[in-house]
Amino acid sequence: MKAKDTKTVVGNIDPDVLHFTVGKDPILDLKLVKWDCLGSAAHVTMLTKMKYTPRLFSKQDRNNVVVELQEIMKRVEKDEFIITEADQDCHLAIERTLTEKLGDVGRRVHTGRSRNDQVATAIRLYIRDELLCTMEENIALANSLISFGKKYKKLPMVGRTHLQPAMPSSVGVWATCYGEGLLDDMHGLWSAFDFTNRNPLGSAASYGVPLPTDRPLTAALLGFAEPIHNVMYAGNSRGKTEYVAVTALSNVMLTLSRLAEDLIIFSMPEFAYFKLPKEFCTGSSIMPQKYNPDVCELIRGKAARVMGLVTSIAATVKAMAGGYNRDLQDTKELMMEAFETTRAALRIMSRLVSGITPNPERLREAFEPGVFATDRALELVASGMPFRDAYHQVRDNLEALKSMDPDNVIAQKTHTGATNGLDFEMYADWLKNQKEAIVEERKKIDKAFAGLLKPLK
Amino acid sequence: MKAKDTKTVVGNIDPDVLHFTVGKDPILDLKLVKWDCLGSAAHVTMLTKMKYTPRLFSKQDRNNVVVELQEIMKRVEKDEFIITEADQDCHLAIERTLTEKLGDVGRRVHTGRSRNDQVATAIRLYIRDELLCTMEENIALANSLISFGKKYKKLPMVGRTHLQPAMPSSVGVWATCYGEGLLDDMHGLWSAFDFTNRNPLGSAASYGVPLPTDRPLTAALLGFAEPIHNVMYAGNSRGKTEYVAVTALSNVMLTLSRLAEDLIIFSMPEFAYFKLPKEFCTGSSIMPQKYNPDVCELIRGKAARVMGLVTSIAATVKAMAGGYNRDLQDTKELMMEAFETTRAALRIMSRLVSGITPNPERLREAFEPGVFATDRALELVASGMPFRDAYHQVRDNLEALKSMDPDNVIAQKTHTGATNGLDFEMYADWLKNQKEAIVEERKKIDKAFAGLLKPLK
Amino acid sequence: MKAKDTKTVVGNIDPDVLHFTVGKDPILDLKLVKWDCLGSAAHVTMLTKMKYTPRLFSKQDRNNVVVELQEIMKRVEKDEFIITEADQDCHLAIERTLTEKLGDVGRRVHTGRSRNDQVATAIRLYIRDELLCTMEENIALANSLISFGKKYKKLPMVGRTHLQPAMPSSVGVWATCYGEGLLDDMHGLWSAFDFTNRNPLGSAASYGVPLPTDRPLTAALLGFAEPIHNVMYAGNSRGKTEYVAVTALSNVMLTLSRLAEDLIIFSMPEFAYFKLPKEFCTGSSIMPQKYNPDVCELIRGKAARVMGLVTSIAATVKAMAGGYNRDLQDTKELMMEAFETTRAALRIMSRLVSGITPNPERLREAFEPGVFATDRALELVASGMPFRDAYHQVRDNLEALKSMDPDNVIAQKTHTGATNGLDFEMYADWLKNQKEAIVEERKKIDKAFAGLLKPLK
Amino acid sequence: MKAKDTKTVVGNIDPDVLHFTVGKDPILDLKLVKWDCLGSAAHVTMLTKMKYTPRLFSKQDRNNVVVELQEIMKRVEKDEFIITEADQDCHLAIERTLTEKLGDVGRRVHTGRSRNDQVATAIRLYIRDELLCTMEENIALANSLISFGKKYKKLPMVGRTHLQPAMPSSVGVWATCYGEGLLDDMHGLWSAFDFTNRNPLGSAASYGVPLPTDRPLTAALLGFAEPIHNVMYAGNSRGKTEYVAVTALSNVMLTLSRLAEDLIIFSMPEFAYFKLPKEFCTGSSIMPQKYNPDVCELIRGKAARVMGLVTSIAATVKAMAGGYNRDLQDTKELMMEAFETTRAALRIMSRLVSGITPNPERLREAFEPGVFATDRALELVASGMPFRDAYHQVRDNLEALKSMDPDNVIAQKTHTGATNGLDFEMYADWLKNQKEAIVEERKKIDKAFAGLLKPLK
Repeated sequence: MKAKDTKTVVGNIDPDVLHFTVGKDPILDLKLVKWDCLGSAAHVTMLTKMKYTPRLFSKQDRNNVVVELQEIMKRVEKDEFIITEADQDCHLAIERTLTEKLGDVGRRVHTGRSRNDQVATAIRLYIRDELLCTMEENIALANSLISFGKKYKKLPMVGRTHLQPAMPSSVGVWATCYGEGLLDDMHGLWSAFDFTNRNPLGSAASYGVPLPTDRPLTAALLGFAEPIHNVMYAGNSRGKTEYVAVTALSNVMLTLSRLAEDLIIFSMPEFAYFKLPKEFCTGSSIMPQKYNPDVCELIRGKAARVMGLVTSIAATVKAMAGGYNRDLQDTKELMMEAFETTRAALRIMSRLVSGITPNPERLREAFEPGVFATDRALELVASGMPFRDAYHQVRDNLEALKSMDPDNVIAQKTHTGATNGLDFEMYADWLKNQKEAIVEERKKIDKAFAGLLKPLK
Repeated sequence: MKAKDTKTVVGNIDPDVLHFTVGKDPILDLKLVKWDCLGSAAHVTMLTKMKYTPRLFSKQDRNNVVVELQEIMKRVEKDEFIITEADQDCHLAIERTLTEKLGDVGRRVHTGRSRNDQVATAIRLYIRDELLCTMEENIALANSLISFGKKYKKLPMVGRTHLQPAMPSSVGVWATCYGEGLLDDMHGLWSAFDFTNRNPLGSAASYGVPLPTDRPLTAALLGFAEPIHNVMYAGNSRGKTEYVAVTALSNVMLTLSRLAEDLIIFSMPEFAYFKLPKEFCTGSSIMPQKYNPDVCELIRGKAARVMGLVTSIAATVKAMAGGYNRDLQDTKELMMEAFETTRAALRIMSRLVSGITPNPERLREAFEPGVFATDRALELVASGMPFRDAYHQVRDNLEALKSMDPDNVIAQKTHTGATNGLDFEMYADWLKNQKEAIVEERKKIDKAFAGLLKPLK
Repeated sequence: MKAKDTKTVVGNIDPDVLHFTVGKDPILDLKLVKWDCLGSAAHVTMLTKMKYTPRLFSKQDRNNVVVELQEIMKRVEKDEFIITEADQDCHLAIERTLTEKLGDVGRRVHTGRSRNDQVATAIRLYIRDELLCTMEENIALANSLISFGKKYKKLPMVGRTHLQPAMPSSVGVWATCYGEGLLDDMHGLWSAFDFTNRNPLGSAASYGVPLPTDRPLTAALLGFAEPIHNVMYAGNSRGKTEYVAVTALSNVMLTLSRLAEDLIIFSMPEFAYFKLPKEFCTGSSIMPQKYNPDVCELIRGKAARVMGLVTSIAATVKAMAGGYNRDLQDTKELMMEAFETTRAALRIMSRLVSGITPNPERLREAFEPGVFATDRALELVASGMPFRDAYHQVRDNLEALKSMDPDNVIAQKTHTGATNGLDFEMYADWLKNQKEAIVEERKKIDKAFAGLLKPLK
Repeated sequence: MKAKDTKTVVGNIDPDVLHFTVGKDPILDLKLVKWDCLGSAAHVTMLTKMKYTPRLFSKQDRNNVVVELQEIMKRVEKDEFIITEADQDCHLAIERTLTEKLGDVGRRVHTGRSRNDQVATAIRLYIRDELLCTMEENIALANSLISFGKKYKKLPMVGRTHLQPAMPSSVGVWATCYGEGLLDDMHGLWSAFDFTNRNPLGSAASYGVPLPTDRPLTAALLGFAEPIHNVMYAGNSRGKTEYVAVTALSNVMLTLSRLAEDLIIFSMPEFAYFKLPKEFCTGSSIMPQKYNPDVCELIRGKAARVMGLVTSIAATVKAMAGGYNRDLQDTKELMMEAFETTRAALRIMSRLVSGITPNPERLREAFEPGVFATDRALELVASGMPFRDAYHQVRDNLEALKSMDPDNVIAQKTHTGATNGLDFEMYADWLKNQKEAIVEERKKIDKAFAGLLKPLK
C-alpha cells in the first residue's frame, strides 16, 4: 500500500519513488523496533551524561524518553506498533512517536547520531540475539542426534562411500556424525557472534560528530564487547556483518541438507533403514499410497535458498564505494530471511529426529559380503601380508568372501571415533560447554539491558 | 498463523509440520489462482470431450465448473478469495470451493491429473504472462533511453574506459548504449518465453494416466505452442523453467545495474553531467544538504538480489533425482520475487530516465586535452605514419596536445553506431517490431482463453 | 614465470604488476589466436577497401598480412606459437609477429581499432564456435538417450516422486525424459548463439574512430549476422556475452547432474536397475570390492562448478561503470572453463549412456503393490466413482491392493508422451532438425572465412 | 595428455574415463606432496608404535620410509617429482615411489588408512598453512594502510555517503577504515584456522578400521589440536573445510574490492585525491594518454571470482549423501584457486598502497560548503535548538552556508575513532598481537614436524 502523504521527516518525495525505496521496511522493521529502542535508550543516556553545554538532556527528560521507548517495545510485542510508509522505517516511526509524546525532547533524541549508525546498531543487536537463538537451536538438534546415536550405538548400519556399500558401520556413528558436524558449525556461529558484538553507535553517518560523545559508554550500556573503532569502518562493516552471519548459517544449512538427503534415501522402501514419523510425511493428491519425506526435501531446498542469500549479500557488498550506500537496505531482509529459514529448519529437524525409528532387520540385511572386504584384507595383514597385496588378493576373490557378523565386526573397531570408540561423555561435555557459553553471553547482555533501562537518579 | 484443523484433503499431519511445509503458499498462491482456474477449465473441458465410458463430465457439469472457476477468478481479483493453511495451496482451495458449490462434480475435477502437473501448468501460465509484462516494461525503458539519446545526440560527453577519460563521445551514444543493451536482453526473454510456452498438463505425477487424455487439446485451449512431450520431462522441467526465466531477468538487472552505476557517478557534483529528478532523491536524517540517488543504488542492490535467486534456483535443481521433489516448492517464490523485483526496477527506471536533465556546460568542460590523443594519432596516420608510431609519438608528447573542439570531433565519427553514425530509424524499427511481437503473442493467448471460457453446447 | 623484459608495446611496468595483470593470458590466449587472426584479416581487408587517403593498405600489403596471419594460425595448431609475458596476450603477440615479418605494414594493422574491440571480436568468434560444438555434443547425447529409450521402451520401471515409488513407468520414459530435456536446453544455446553472432569490430575502445570504417563489411567477412550497432554497447556487451553463454551451459549441466544423480541411485545394489560399464567405474584404495560411479559424481561436481562460474561472471558485470574495465579480463577464463567443463561432461556421458545395461528382473521386482494404487483408483473412477472418493477408498485399503502386471499397465498409458505414447519419429525429426540447423550455421561461417582468406586481386 | 598405460594401482579403466576423472590432479597435487609426505610419516610412525601383532613396521623400516618421504619432499621442491596420469594423484604417486625404493615396506604404508583420510589430512595441512600465510599477508596490508593513515591523519578528505559528499573526514580515517576492516576479517581467518586444525587421519574410508590405531598420536605428530572424533564426520567434513576457508577468504576479497573501488574513483582526474604509482598502471593500445588503474580493477574482478568459488563449493556439498563422494575432488581445486587469488591480491595491494601519493590541494578543494551542513546544524544545537529543528533550518538555508575550514573541523571531532580520535597505539597493539599469534601457531607446528621427522631409536 502506498503512502498518501509523502511529506516525510526528511523531505518531499514522489509517492512511487517512496514506495520503491521503502520496500518492505514497514513490515521487516517491526523486528528491529525492540533493538532500536534499546539503541536509542543507550544514545540518550550517553547524551545525558556527556559533558557538553548546553546540556542536551536532563535526567528527567532522559528518563521520560526511556519510559516511552519501553512503552513502544511493549506495543510492538502486542502487535500494536505500526510503521507507516511515510515513516519509511522503524527509526523514523520511533522518533515520530517520541515527538508526539514528548514534544521537543523527542526531536532532540537524534542529536549526534545518524540513521546510519542507528540502523547499524539495531541490526547488530538483532543479529547478536538471533545468533544466540540459532546456537541454542543448533545445540538442541546436535543433542537429539547424539542421543539418538547413543541409543543405537550398537546397531549395525552399512557405511557407504560413493553411495555404494563400503564398510561396516553403525547407526551410532551415522547419527553422531551429524551431531558432531553441527557442533563443528558452532565455530562459525561464535566467530560471527564475536564479529557482531561490537558497537557502531556514535559513528553517525560514518564520519563522527563534533561532539564529545562517549562511544565506549554506549558499547557498555548495550552489552557490546567494545566500540568498532574507526567511524568509517563502523559504517563500512554493514553488509559484511550480514555476510559473516549468513555464511555461518549457510554452513549449518549445508549440514542439515546432507542429513536430510540421508534420511530421504534411507527411508526409501528399498532401504527402510529408518521410518520417519508419519505425522511428518505428506501424501499425494493423486497417489493414495504415498508418504513423502517433505520436511527433508524442503530443508534441502532451504539450504539452496540460504546459498542464494550468501550470493546476494556478497554481490551487494562487492566493490561498493566506501561509506553508506542505499543498496545495503536490502541486505537486512536477506539476513533476516536467512535466520528465519535456518532456525525453522533446525527446530523442525529436532522434532523429526526425535521421532525416527530405525529398522534393525533391514539394517542388518543390508550387509552383503562385499562390505566386509576391507576387514578380510586387514585379517590377511594380521597374518603378515603387506596391505596392498592383501587388497589385491581379496579383490581377485570377491566371490569367496564369506559373510561376517556385522555386530561382531563393529565391536572390533575400537579406536577413537570408530563404531566401538565413540566417546559419549566427551560429547556430553561439549554440549554442556556450548550451552554454558551461550548462557553466559545471555547473562552479560541481560545485565547490561537491565542497567540501561533503569531510571537515572 | 498455524492451522487449527490439520485434517487436510490429503491426510493428517502435525500442525507444526503443516506450517513448515505450507510456508508462504497461502499468500504466494493468490497470484496463481487465476492461472490454476484456467488450467482447471482446460482440464475439465478436455475430460468432457474425452472418449471414455463412463462419461466423466456432461457438458452441463463442465459449464457449471467453468462458471464457478470464473467466479473464483473474480473473487481473487477483489481480494475476496482466501487460501487457508489447511488448504495448503491454491489448488486444494479451488478444489474445496468447487466441491462446496457443486458437490460430486467438484470431486471429479481432479480425475486424471495430479497436483504436480496442475502446479506446473499454473506456473508456466504465470511465467508466460509475467514475461510478456516484463518485455513490455523493458521495451518502454529502452524507448525512454533511445528517445533521450536522440534528443541529446549532438551533446558531447567524455567516453571512458577504466573509468578514466578516454575518447570523445556523446550523450546520444551513452543513452542508446543502454537502450540497445535492453533490446539485446530481449533475446533471453524471448527464449524464456518459447521455453515456457509448452504445456505440462496431462503428465499427472510425471508418469501419465491410464486414460485417453488429449494433451494437445489442453495445450491449444491454454494457448500453449504444444504439449511438453515426455510426461516425466514435463515434471522434471519444473525448476528449470524458473531458472531459464530468472537468468533472463538477471541479465536485464545486470544491464540496469550498470546504467544505475553510471547515473550515480555522473550525478556526483564532481561530474554533474546529469541532474536526477529531485523527487527521485532522498535526503539524510543527519545531513541537511543531501540529495542521494537512492533509486539507482537500490537497483544495484536488487541486481545483487536477483543474482542470488539464480544461485538458489540452480542449487535447488542441481542433482535432484528425477520426478517431483518437494524442494521445488521454494523455486516458485524465488521466481515470483525475481519478476516482482525486475519489473519494479524497470518501471521506476523508466520514470527516472524521463526526468534526467543533462548539464551541457559540465559535459563540455570535462574534455581535457588527453581525451583527444587518439584522434590526434589518427590525424598523423592520415598523413602517412603507421598507427603504432603515431601512437608513440603522441604518447611522448602528451603535454603538447592542444585541445580540440568536442562538438566538431564527435561530428566526424560517422561510421555505423558512432557518435555521428547512430541510426535512430533502425532503433525505432527494432522497438516497433518488438512491440508488435508482444502484441501478437498476447492476441493468441487472449483468443485461446476466450474460447476456453465459453459454454460448451 | 615472470617476464624479464617488461618494456611492453604499451609502456614500462613493474614486473610483479605485469605478472599480476597478465595472469594466465599467455596460456589461455592460445585458444584465441585463430580467432584473432581471422578478426585481424577482416579488419585489414576492410581498411584496404576503405575510402580514405592516404590508402592505409595496398592489396599486396593486405595479402601479405593475411598470408602471415594464416601462418600464425598454422603455428598455433602445431603448438609452435608462443605468447610471452611481455606480449601480455595473443593480440600483442600477433602484432609483434606481423611487425617482425612485415615491418611497417605490421605496425599499421592496429589502425582504427583498439584491443577492446579486437578482444571482443575474438571472444565472440570463439564463443560462437564453442556453442556450435557444444550443441553438436549435446545433440549426440540426446540421441544416445533417445536411442536407449527406444530400445527399452517396453521395459517397466517404477516412476518416483519424492524418490518414493509412485507409479508405473518405463525405462523408455526415463531415458527420453533426459533426452528431451537436453533438446529443450537447445533453446538457451541457440539464444546464446544469436546473441553472440553480432560483430563488435570497429567499435574501437567503445567510442569509434574518426575514420570511414565499414563495420557491416567486417561483419559479413566474419560471418556475423550484423554489427552490434552502438559502439559503446559493443564494448559494454563484454561480460554479458559470456554470461549469456555460461548460463546456457549451466542449464545443460543441471540436466546432466540430474541424469547423473539418477544413475548413481539406480546403480546402487539396492536397486541395480542399471549396470554402469565397468571401465567407467573406479575402485577404492582400501576397499577391494568397490566399483564406484565416479564419472557421474564428477559430473554433479562439475555442475556445481559451472554454477559458480555463473556467479563470478554476474558479480563481475554487476554495477560495472560503462566502457571497458579490466575486471573483464577474468570473465574470459571463466567462460573458457565453462565450455571445457560442459563439453567434456557431454562427451563422457554419451559414452557412458551407450554402455549402460538395464537389469529387467530387478526393474520388475521393484513393482510393489502400492505403485498401482493410482491405477486402481482410476479403475474405480471408470466404474463411476468421483476421483477424490476413489482416492480415499484406495488409501484406506492399501493392504488389499493386489499387484497388477507392470508390462500390462504401462501398455495402457497411451496418451501423448506416456509409457505407450512416446513418439519416437517426432524425436527423430527434432534431432534431425537440430543437426541440420547446426550444419547450416557452420556452412555460412565456413563460406565467410573462405572468402575472407582469399587474396584480393 | 592422456595416460597410455591405464592399468592403475586400483584397476583397469578406460583411458578417456581416467583422463576425465583424474582431471588436473597431476598438476594440482604437486602442492599437496609435501603435506601428504608428512601425513604418511605420521601414519607410519603411529603404525610402528601401535600395539599389534604382527608388528607392521620395525623402527628401521619406519625410519627408511621417513627418509624416502623427505627425499620426495626435496624433489618436489626442486620441481623433480612427477605425478603421471596413471598415478592419478600424489597419493598413489608417493606410494608407488616408496614401493619402487623400499619394496614390501612401501606396500605396507597404506595399512589402516584409506585415500579418503589421507587426502583429507593433506588438504587440512595445506589449508592450515595457507591460512597462516594469508593471515601474514593480510596483516602486512593492514599495516600498510594504517601506516598510510597515520602519516596523513591530519589531511582532510571529504567523507561520502551514497558517493555524494557528506561530511568532513580525513585520509587517516579513510585508510585506517580499510586497515581495521582487514583486521576484522581476521575473525573469519582464525575461525577457519581453528576449524581446520583437527586431524581426520585414521578415519580411513570414513568408517575406521579394526586395528588399534592411535588417532590422538597422529594428531599430535602433525601439530593438530586434536583428532576429529567421529570417523564418518572426519570424512563428511571435507568440502565443508574448504567452504569455511573460502568464505573467510571471500570476506577479505570483499574488503579489498571496496578499497580498490575507492582507489579507482579517487584517482579519476575529476578527483585526483590519490595518484597511483605509475608502474602499477597500464596504458591503452589505442589511447596514448591513458594510465589505467588495472590492478585495482583486476582485484574487483578477482573478488567476483572468489564469490563464485564460494557458490561452487556450497553447491557441491549441498545435499551430498553421507560418506565420501567423488564430487569433492573438485573442491580441492576451487579452494587452491581461492588461496592463490586472495594471496596474490593481498601482496600486490600492499605494494600499491605503499606507493600512493595523496594530493592535498585537490583533497581540500573538494570541500564545498554543503559538506559542513551537519556541523552547522550541530552548532545550532549547541545554542539550544533541538536537532531536528536545526536540521530543517540548515536545509532550508543551504545557500547561506558559509564554508568552514576543513582542517579545523576535523580537528574538532575528537571522540573514539573520529578524525581526531584515532588511536594509533591501539592499532599497533592489534597488529602486534595478531603477528604474535601467527608466530606462535607456526612454532607449534614446526616443533611437531621436527619431532615427526626424527629417526625413531
